[in-house]
Parts: sequence; structure tokens; C-alpha cells
Amino acid sequence: MVDTANDSLSEFLASAVDAAHKAGEIIRKGFYQTKHVEHKGQVDLVTETDKACEELIFNHLKQLYPTHKFIGEETTAACGTTELTDEPTWIVDPLDGTTNFVHGFPFVCVSIGLTIGKIPTIGVVYNPIINELFTGISGKGAFLNGNPIKVSSQTELISSLLATEAGTKRDKETIDASTNRINSLLFKVRSLRMSGSCALNLCGIASGRLDVFFELGFGGPWDVAGGAVIVREAGGVVFDPSGADFDITSQRVAASNPFLKDAFVDALRQMV
Amino acid sequence: MVDTANDSLSEFLASAVDAAHKAGEIIRKGFYQTKHVEHKGQVDLVTETDKACEELIFNHLKQLYPTHKFIGEETTAACGTTELTDEPTWIVDPLDGTTNFVHGFPFVCVSIGLTIGKIPTIGVVYNPIINELFTGISGKGAFLNGNPIKVSSQTELISSLLATEAGTKRDKETIDASTNRINSLLFKVRSLRMSGSCALNLCGIASGRLDVFFELGFGGPWDVAGGAVIVREAGGVVFDPSGADFDITSQRVAASNPFLKDAFVDALRQMV
Repeated sequence: MVDTANDSLSEFLASAVDAAHKAGEIIRKGFYQTKHVEHKGQVDLVTETDKACEELIFNHLKQLYPTHKFIGEETTAACGTTELTDEPTWIVDPLDGTTNFVHGFPFVCVSIGLTIGKIPTIGVVYNPIINELFTGISGKGAFLNGNPIKVSSQTELISSLLATEAGTKRDKETIDASTNRINSLLFKVRSLRMSGSCALNLCGIASGRLDVFFELGFGGPWDVAGGAVIVREAGGVVFDPSGADFDITSQRVAASNPFLKDAFVDALRQMV
Repeated sequence: MVDTANDSLSEFLASAVDAAHKAGEIIRKGFYQTKHVEHKGQVDLVTETDKACEELIFNHLKQLYPTHKFIGEETTAACGTTELTDEPTWIVDPLDGTTNFVHGFPFVCVSIGLTIGKIPTIGVVYNPIINELFTGISGKGAFLNGNPIKVSSQTELISSLLATEAGTKRDKETIDASTNRINSLLFKVRSLRMSGSCALNLCGIASGRLDVFFELGFGGPWDVAGGAVIVREAGGVVFDPSGADFDITSQRVAASNPFLKDAFVDALRQMV
């Protein structure tokens, strides 16, 4: 199958990187504008940037790979869920870290993943503000700006740096459950980081900056499709917070190096 | 008094920037080494980097200003508390974000403040990993890499981005109080960020990336002396989380733009 041969994978990655760089330019421009527009204008700027980036990425890739399938956050919001099939499928979050984008907090990124046979195979996560490009190809490693990266070598949960997010739901049940988990975990890890981007948290695991990460109830597969490849290619594991297999469509994700998984799942048990 | 004239303040700032750049080189070098040393070696590397940076900064400034006083995190740890007097006093955290440094999470900085008559007058906060230099001089504005910065124009707490930290204490009382505050605040703000550096959180307020920030029980005046000037010079307010006046020696700090202070203090009431 020519499409999935190694040469094609490298070509797919190069195409995704091109698309991410182009979208990154739009994000960078908007990032420095959000402070100068009124609130209503900010909302428009986010929507416009999101849509412009998704259109740009989809057009770029569709022209090169007209037979491939596409799933994007913006398109899904407009047209409803697209079923994930075995076909090569590009799964795109044109702007992850929307709240950060509005506030000018420099953790924003483009996330592009390609699944083949439903398996995340190519991952590109690009933060255009601090100029960090994370990439991964199944079987060929993970990279930050072209340099190989790997997960941390931490073996003790108590010495681990945890990342999670407060999410966007503000009902009492969700907030109580979320802060109860944080309370329980703070006794078991070194410290906690919340940076506001699921894709960049996965890249934090891949590059060893973070040791353990979980998030529940995020937007959709576009938040994790790119990052999952990068974590695995950096020697890490991606799994359901319950310890079950990772399901890209479940809006639940956990990631760590292989040593910490069992202790982390134990710590999360009965809370997720 | 020649020492506090505007010319002298500009000279003090330039000297502090020089010292911060030099210390930043040491931090940058160590930052990329921590992953390659064993755990015990990591602890040594932190201690060595911390001490080397403080010594370098103190030597640099003492040579230029032999009559000034000095308070530093490392010196205080070794020699006990130094009383803050009305004399020009350099207050230095050679490496803020120690946990981030160990893990390679790119929020680390040098923080240098100068108080005159106990009032923070010069502030320099330098993140050598993402190359951001925040500066402030009383009455002369705040800058990021030489460009003027100002606090956000947000007026609604519910649309605000909050920062706080989990701290380092892991007793039940502290953790419960901390997560109870987070629980209560999550109903009242847009979202929460935890980045692991008090000084950089203050600079986040100053540059409008964050809207409201508070922290209790951090290390000492060196975490806030530099950032406090930068926030105020960016048009922000620094205060005790109870709403009382800011006390640089109290290990309690809150900061925001002027519009959000009252609502933020209301939200924190009875919890701090």
C-alpha cells in the first residue's frame, strides 16, 4: 500500500508541517492583536482565526491528498460529527488554547494528526509564539524543532510534575469533581501545572518537561490526535485515565512515561 | 540625594539587567543539563546553579554599589533573615521556579528588585529560556524586551484569567485550604493557570496575559520584590489578598489591574 509506506509518511509529515507553519503565521498575527480589540471584537477575532486556520490547513492538505478524509474542530462545530474510519484521516485543531489566545498567554498551538486504520500515525503540534514545533511519525521518533525528544526518566509519582486543566464547564458537579481530583493528587505528586492547551500538555510529556498528564471532557479528537503520536514516539504511553486503552474519540486522555503509568492510574482510580 | 535621582535609577536598572543576563547564562546551561543527571545530581545542580547565580549577582552589584544592602534567597537560607531597612537594598531570587528548572518546564527566571525606603523601586525579571526580560523603574514604566507593557483592560472577574500556585507544603490543612480556594474561584473566573513561578506570574499580570493572581506562603520577599515594581509600572495594583496594603515581607501577594481588585478581593474574602 503505497500511501502508508515510509516515504509517504515522511511526505505527509512535511505537508503537515508546511500547513502548520502557514496557520501559525495567522495565529501569531492574531495573538498580538487580541489586546487591541474590544471584547466583542475579541470573540470575532478568535472565530475568524480559528476558521481561517482550519480552512488553510484543509485546503493545503486536500490539494495534495484529495482522497484523504478530514475532521476539524470548526467543521465539526458547523456540520456535526464526522465518523472516524480506517481511511487516512487528517484530524485538525487549528487553534488549541483559545482562552490563552484571547488573553495573550503564550501557550497556543496548531495541532494536526493523521490516523491510518484509526491509529494516530503522524503528529504535528506547533506553538508559533515561542516557536516550538513538535513532530512525530509512527516508528520514526519524536522531535522538537528537529531534535529528538524523549519522555522523562522519573520513576516516582511523588517526585513527578503533574499537568491537568480546569476545563470549560462551570457547573457545580464538574468543578467539585475536578477540585476533588486535584486535592487527592496534590498529596501524591511534586507539583501541578495548568497551561491551558491539551496538545501542548501532551508535548510536555513527550519532551520530559511534565511527567504525568490527564484531562477529561476536552473538545474532541483534534485535541489529542497529533500529540498522541508524539508522546508514543518519544517513548511514552497514552491511555484512558482509568487505565483502559486510549480511545481517541472518548474526550478522555492520560499520558506519562511507561514507569509511572501504574502508579498514576492507581492515584486516579475511582475518580475518573 | 544623588543615589535616588532618576539618572541613578536608570544606572541601577542597567546594572541589574547586566547581572540578570549573566545569571541567565548559568541557568540556561543548567536547564538543558538537568535531564542528563541522576536524581541526586539534579538536586546538586539546582543548589549549585542557585548559589552560583546569587554569588554572581551579589558580586556584580556589590562592586558597583558597595554601600547598598543585599537580601538573597540563598544567603537567607544559609545565614538567617536579614532585616529590611530604609537603605537601598537589592532583593534577589537567583532562580525562581526551581521545580520547573529540575523538570525542564520553561518557566524559570532571575528576579532582582531594589527597594529604597522599603519601597520596591527597580525590578528586573528575566526568563533566559524563552528570552523574556521584564523591567520596571518607579515612575518610568514597565517593559518587556524594551517594549512598553501594560496590564489587561478586563473589567469582569468572570471573564478573567486567574493564576495561582499549589505551593510546596503538602500537609492536609494547606492542601485542603488551597483546593477549597480553587473550587470557589473556578465559579467566578474564566479559567486557571499554574505555571510555577511567582515572579513570572506577576509579570504575566503586568503584560496583561493574566488578569488576576494571588499566592500565599511562598518563599520570601525575593519572589515579589522585582515583580511588584513591574506590575505597578504597568498600571497594575499589588496588594495583600485580604485587600490590605501589600507587605513585601508577609509571603502573601495579590495583583491585578485596578478595575478587578475589588471583585477579586471579594472573591477571596474569608479564604485568605
